[in-house]
Amino acid sequence: MIDKSIIEAGNAARAADLAVDYDTLGERLDRRGIDINAIKDKIAAFGVAIPSWGVGTGGTRFARFPGPGEPRDIFDKLADCGVIQQLTRATPSVSLHIPWDIAPAEDLLSRAEEAGLTFDAMNSNTFQDHEDHPLSYKYGSLSHTDAATRSQAVDHNIECIELGEKIGSKALTIWVGDGSNFPGQSNFTRQFERYLDSARVIYDRLADDWTLLTEHKMYEPAFYSTVVQDWGTNLLIAQQLGEKAKCLVDLGHHAPNVNIEMIVARLNQFGKLGGFHFNDSKYGDDDLDAGSIDPYRLFLVFNELVEAEADPDFDPMHMLDQSHNVTDPIESLMISATEVQRAYAQALLVDRAALGGFQQENDALMATLTLKQAFRTDVEPILAMARQETGGAIDPVAAYREACYRAAVAEERPAVSGAGGGIV
Amino acid sequence: MIDKSIIEAGNAARAADLAVDYDTLGERLDRRGIDINAIKDKIAAFGVAIPSWGVGTGGTRFARFPGPGEPRDIFDKLADCGVIQQLTRATPSVSLHIPWDIAPAEDLLSRAEEAGLTFDAMNSNTFQDHEDHPLSYKYGSLSHTDAATRSQAVDHNIECIELGEKIGSKALTIWVGDGSNFPGQSNFTRQFERYLDSARVIYDRLADDWTLLTEHKMYEPAFYSTVVQDWGTNLLIAQQLGEKAKCLVDLGHHAPNVNIEMIVARLNQFGKLGGFHFNDSKYGDDDLDAGSIDPYRLFLVFNELVEAEADPDFDPMHMLDQSHNVTDPIESLMISATEVQRAYAQALLVDRAALGGFQQENDALMATLTLKQAFRTDVEPILAMARQETGGAIDPVAAYREACYRAAVAEERPAVSGAGGGIV
Amino acid sequence: MIDKSIIEAGNAARAADLAVDYDTLGERLDRRGIDINAIKDKIAAFGVAIPSWGVGTGGTRFARFPGPGEPRDIFDKLADCGVIQQLTRATPSVSLHIPWDIAPAEDLLSRAEEAGLTFDAMNSNTFQDHEDHPLSYKYGSLSHTDAATRSQAVDHNIECIELGEKIGSKALTIWVGDGSNFPGQSNFTRQFERYLDSARVIYDRLADDWTLLTEHKMYEPAFYSTVVQDWGTNLLIAQQLGEKAKCLVDLGHHAPNVNIEMIVARLNQFGKLGGFHFNDSKYGDDDLDAGSIDPYRLFLVFNELVEAEADPDFDPMHMLDQSHNVTDPIESLMISATEVQRAYAQALLVDRAALGGFQQENDALMATLTLKQAFRTDVEPILAMARQETGGAIDPVAAYREACYRAAVAEERPAVSGAGGGIV
Amino acid sequence: MIDKSIIEAGNAARAADLAVDYDTLGERLDRRGIDINAIKDKIAAFGVAIPSWGVGTGGTRFARFPGPGEPRDIFDKLADCGVIQQLTRATPSVSLHIPWDIAPAEDLLSRAEEAGLTFDAMNSNTFQDHEDHPLSYKYGSLSHTDAATRSQAVDHNIECIELGEKIGSKALTIWVGDGSNFPGQSNFTRQFERYLDSARVIYDRLADDWTLLTEHKMYEPAFYSTVVQDWGTNLLIAQQLGEKAKCLVDLGHHAPNVNIEMIVARLNQFGKLGGFHFNDSKYGDDDLDAGSIDPYRLFLVFNELVEAEADPDFDPMHMLDQSHNVTDPIESLMISATEVQRAYAQALLVDRAALGGFQQENDALMATLTLKQAFRTDVEPILAMARQETGGAIDPVAAYREACYRAAVAEERPAVSGAGGGIV
Repeated sequence: MIDKSIIEAGNAARAADLAVDYDTLGERLDRRGIDINAIKDKIAAFGVAIPSWGVGTGGTRFARFPGPGEPRDIFDKLADCGVIQQLTRATPSVSLHIPWDIAPAEDLLSRAEEAGLTFDAMNSNTFQDHEDHPLSYKYGSLSHTDAATRSQAVDHNIECIELGEKIGSKALTIWVGDGSNFPGQSNFTRQFERYLDSARVIYDRLADDWTLLTEHKMYEPAFYSTVVQDWGTNLLIAQQLGEKAKCLVDLGHHAPNVNIEMIVARLNQFGKLGGFHFNDSKYGDDDLDAGSIDPYRLFLVFNELVEAEADPDFDPMHMLDQSHNVTDPIESLMISATEVQRAYAQALLVDRAALGGFQQENDALMATLTLKQAFRTDVEPILAMARQETGGAIDPVAAYREACYRAAVAEERPAVSGAGGGIV
Repeated sequence: MIDKSIIEAGNAARAADLAVDYDTLGERLDRRGIDINAIKDKIAAFGVAIPSWGVGTGGTRFARFPGPGEPRDIFDKLADCGVIQQLTRATPSVSLHIPWDIAPAEDLLSRAEEAGLTFDAMNSNTFQDHEDHPLSYKYGSLSHTDAATRSQAVDHNIECIELGEKIGSKALTIWVGDGSNFPGQSNFTRQFERYLDSARVIYDRLADDWTLLTEHKMYEPAFYSTVVQDWGTNLLIAQQLGEKAKCLVDLGHHAPNVNIEMIVARLNQFGKLGGFHFNDSKYGDDDLDAGSIDPYRLFLVFNELVEAEADPDFDPMHMLDQSHNVTDPIESLMISATEVQRAYAQALLVDRAALGGFQQENDALMATLTLKQAFRTDVEPILAMARQETGGAIDPVAAYREACYRAAVAEERPAVSGAGGGIV
Repeated sequence: MIDKSIIEAGNAARAADLAVDYDTLGERLDRRGIDINAIKDKIAAFGVAIPSWGVGTGGTRFARFPGPGEPRDIFDKLADCGVIQQLTRATPSVSLHIPWDIAPAEDLLSRAEEAGLTFDAMNSNTFQDHEDHPLSYKYGSLSHTDAATRSQAVDHNIECIELGEKIGSKALTIWVGDGSNFPGQSNFTRQFERYLDSARVIYDRLADDWTLLTEHKMYEPAFYSTVVQDWGTNLLIAQQLGEKAKCLVDLGHHAPNVNIEMIVARLNQFGKLGGFHFNDSKYGDDDLDAGSIDPYRLFLVFNELVEAEADPDFDPMHMLDQSHNVTDPIESLMISATEVQRAYAQALLVDRAALGGFQQENDALMATLTLKQAFRTDVEPILAMARQETGGAIDPVAAYREACYRAAVAEERPAVSGAGGGIV
Repeated sequence: MIDKSIIEAGNAARAADLAVDYDTLGERLDRRGIDINAIKDKIAAFGVAIPSWGVGTGGTRFARFPGPGEPRDIFDKLADCGVIQQLTRATPSVSLHIPWDIAPAEDLLSRAEEAGLTFDAMNSNTFQDHEDHPLSYKYGSLSHTDAATRSQAVDHNIECIELGEKIGSKALTIWVGDGSNFPGQSNFTRQFERYLDSARVIYDRLADDWTLLTEHKMYEPAFYSTVVQDWGTNLLIAQQLGEKAKCLVDLGHHAPNVNIEMIVARLNQFGKLGGFHFNDSKYGDDDLDAGSIDPYRLFLVFNELVEAEADPDFDPMHMLDQSHNVTDPIESLMISATEVQRAYAQALLVDRAALGGFQQENDALMATLTLKQAFRTDVEPILAMARQETGGAIDPVAAYREACYRAAVAEERPAVSGAGGGIV
């Protein structure tokens, strides 16, 4: 963890400016009829889960260039996640990935508690072969033509549920890479029937207070077809399985140009919006930092979520899911959590009564300006004040760098070779 | 109509070569266990409807460059469609577009009979203002915020059904341009609720033996969001409305890179595949001639359709929907109908038993080669023989050009000004 | 023109709040070492040209829904443009489109002077047929296979230059729709040779102080290939023609996902960045309001422009080019001009010394946060203060609506029929 | 190598049918004025190079699922390539990738000769770190901000040239992954200047009879910007460096919807078309088998190449570049080489005189049908006859499977672990 004195000293140096900025923003918002403190309280209460694998350096099929002090196991990862939560107060939970993060439940619980963290959704993995699984997922997992392979994949998911139950998780997220690389390789209908049959077995194993989140993705690792290729197929899965099944939306898993905020609205309208994997993308599933490429799109997604908050049962899960190839993963995750909060804060500023009126009148210009007014408000003072008041850092990156955390863990954690695999 | 002697003379000159080509192809297919005559019979029985508007020259928002002899009304259009059917024997029906094609039912029936045609699905139009409709569709139709405008749009659709009932149609196709051009202009959820409410009124008016086909489209004329933007929303509509409601797939209405044949399979799997608008596209809703850009994709769609034929209840509707900007529309429609038949014929050649085996064994290479073997077979002799035997032309374009039909009608039909509107 | 008293009253009501907001922003910027007044002065000096056709309501190939008070001719258009400039002080010039705006030069000059406007680049039109041009552009213009048609298109461009010379323009912008709709329709190489030959004749006619701007576009109205399809071909044109030839970048004319700001940098690096057509798009050439879909992308383009300002010879042209289908065009153009200024102001706030250091050190996180810090600064007080000080309106849309300009001109200008063409 | 008796037995069983099919096709082509033997001779003389890495199983960033008998080193790879050439007679050369294929030149030469192969272009690798290179390419190679890293990358390329000179190669292909993942991370202009400076050093080292091929790619491994992102930048490189520098076109490296055949035509028109990496793609750089997704596009590329053959100096290089994730790489490469030949054969069948006439007359329909007539001709008998006459297999996959080559080498080559890395 970061020494508190570093956080406190950094905050002390920034507190006066922050107070001024917060007050002047408060006055401007007050003119618009908005109570800045109410916004700040909502931000302070808002959290986004960290994916355990996010604290490691990512890579591409061409190469992975590791950084210093890479986490060696789930306990190192929990330590890194603890730092993110300590500084940002925006990331209270961690989402585990099995088998990468397998460990005794009691150890996971105690180390998470030390780091001030709880456990979010469990993630299964049947897009890679496991050393202790006899059958390969090369040609699919839940939808494989071979019943034994499907069964192995189902059992793995149940194993994830069982560990999750012990550590307080309430959801299982399934993403499979199943699909095909050639026209004709797979029979689309038979393949999806097999998927549904497998998913039903997993679904039936879920406790009543659990949620099954299925994730769609247009392509990669399969390059001609993917079983759960879009929200249409994802919706069918959730409909076929039942009430505990909902759809997870990863912002980078869509076709070019697709209106993602509209998909969010549709899924919510029909009770099937389960949660998010936040990240950003320019080309494909780029897994870039949330809000780094198109911050307005992130705002528009949150505009839908705030709209949906009117329903008291609305409670989707929020998780980051990014690949950090050229930055320190801890820094990227801190900034990304902040960007998600920023989009939420901006969306909270939208004058919904005015917006509704403009929509009814087809005053497109004023309607869109109503969104823009909220979006262009610099809410950084709100985010920073929320951090300061909850014990976090006004400037998380500055505090992190000053603490030299990375250099410190690099002394304990051995360097990882950068030599790439021969994958092209 | 084209003088029969022209067709007969053309066929006579080509018959000997065709016989040789048909026989040698028959021998090659026989080696693969395929009876060429059975394929030919299926092709002869297969038809695709012509859109009435397709026989006029299309345009873009920048300009329309009319050709000579443009049809002046639905009766001219029926005459042109009659020529297409006469020469190709592949287009036995016409799909009307209301209000463009409004005419007394008895006149429509008698002129269609003269032209050897019947009537396919009716198409309503609420993406343009009608001279006799007091309210504008500028901000929407079935999903408009104003109840009176929605009601006007509903009434128009019912008017289409009523005309259709008189002329033997059994389906109504609804495509709306409703959407928005700015973030915030429309509330996605309220807008879709209004759409569903309007559609329900239309649906309830349908006779039991009618089908309601709804059509999705990613964008254009709306450029930020579209109410029925993709097959996911289209599926929701069909689910909400009931059994008579099914989804229509236009090949050009999807996001870039989307696997359309997979959407076809999904809709069929869940009983919601209603029919097709065939065309081709490279960029957006280009409305190019079927199979002109990516003939393999058209084949892969038909591969799904032939796969689905195993179900005796499977009976989707087939229609061309193209915009002919630089060709003679009659020629383009003849060739496009032929290309649709070609894809069907190729798909019929797929060795499905072998394919199923390769799929089960994950022999991706042989599975895809099984499709390719069918696709690369030059089935032109089958198509030509089917035409010849049913009284059509072995070479429809040659016959059409020799008959100088266009020049003849241009004498009767006045030239249309080519001066573009000021739309940029 | 708008009555000054309306502007003054509106400003008076907003001046106090603006002063506070400007001062508190000034303080915050001062902490970052930025002089707010210097930024404001640059904004006040920055203008973007209005396209004359932009003040009319646009449409799609499906329909055009006109609004009240549509301008009847170039003089009405100049009046509307004058209002935009009066209220925003951001649009000092107008870009004419020939033949739509043909009028005696002296009349154009006098009416523009009355409206407080000058003339920007001339735009030729060979994507539509002209009533007084005997030959059709259906199959192309500058690249047509027919020499006489090419010659007619060249002459038209020279006519545009001649009118431009009389009214103080210094540039000709050429956009052609030439291309093809079918593989094989055109020989790519011969077609481009013909284009270059025609363009050379036009280029040779240009005075030394004129610039020839050529515009690339991926597709539409041609749907298989377009002669000037991307910046690569555009660059070749500029290279082949000579120093007076430069490339114009329209933000909506690129393939999906393309990094446009990088194209801007490349063209500038090699001396061929001539200017911009600003708008926004989500799918294709949607011609939506600048900054309405992806404001961060607009900022990133201006980030390149500010970077390039270090070169004293850097002087690209800026023009809006949008289609206003659902808004009052005057309102959209006012807001769009403001959005362009906003992006410029934000880009001016980038700490370039810090950015350069982070780039050199490969500190990707701090580099991108440096841009984000500038982007998320709410510069509205700077823009509003610049308008107020130069006689414009603090809130242009409010002033415009209060003045009831549209209702007033609608009394003089007859309503235009909304009945769509039969183009589908 | 495959036992000749297996090939001979397989051919003997198929020879009679092939003779019939070849003769009947010959008759049909004769009617169109085409000499089938002339086509066959051109096909027999046409070869496409195999990438050495193509004989290994590829993977994605999620996982790699190896197959049995993976080649352990360049000598195993040469053996596999020899089999491909033995059976298809379409792949006379191999393209090496350094450092993966480093070996003594004399050993490379002798083993290649044994396998009946020569060496095509050399490929350098600065998108991965090398064990013996002290500096990392994490933040770039030829365009790195650090001069020492750039120098190391330059030296590596020169090392590739030196080895190439010893083994008879005449070209160096450079593909770099340099780019950025965040707006602001890199200064586009400075980065490209550094790239050009580095490339110039390599270029100056080239012998006069060598070609430098540079390869553009839209994205991946960099996800916000890529230094050589498209053909425009690639063209600038070739222009800046000089006559020996030309552009390499990989079919999967473009933005969605881009017209690749037009890029081929443009590069050729200006003397800068250097060669191809053939593969196919549906979404991104999918590296699927050539012609497997869109065979008509492959044909249209070859249509440009045959068009360009009129110039006696036209001599681009042809190479496959694919990733085989779910097939036996040897089988995929054999089929892909055949598909490239097929597209070439079809393009040779185009009636260019007729095509030119239709183009001149703007007879778009007949022009495109002229291409389609060639494309839909089943040229398999020509390809098979060319293979048979040059000692290859009429059905290469059947011969390969019958020979049980994979099982045989799997006995010698140890199994590779399938456990994926932790890259997500």
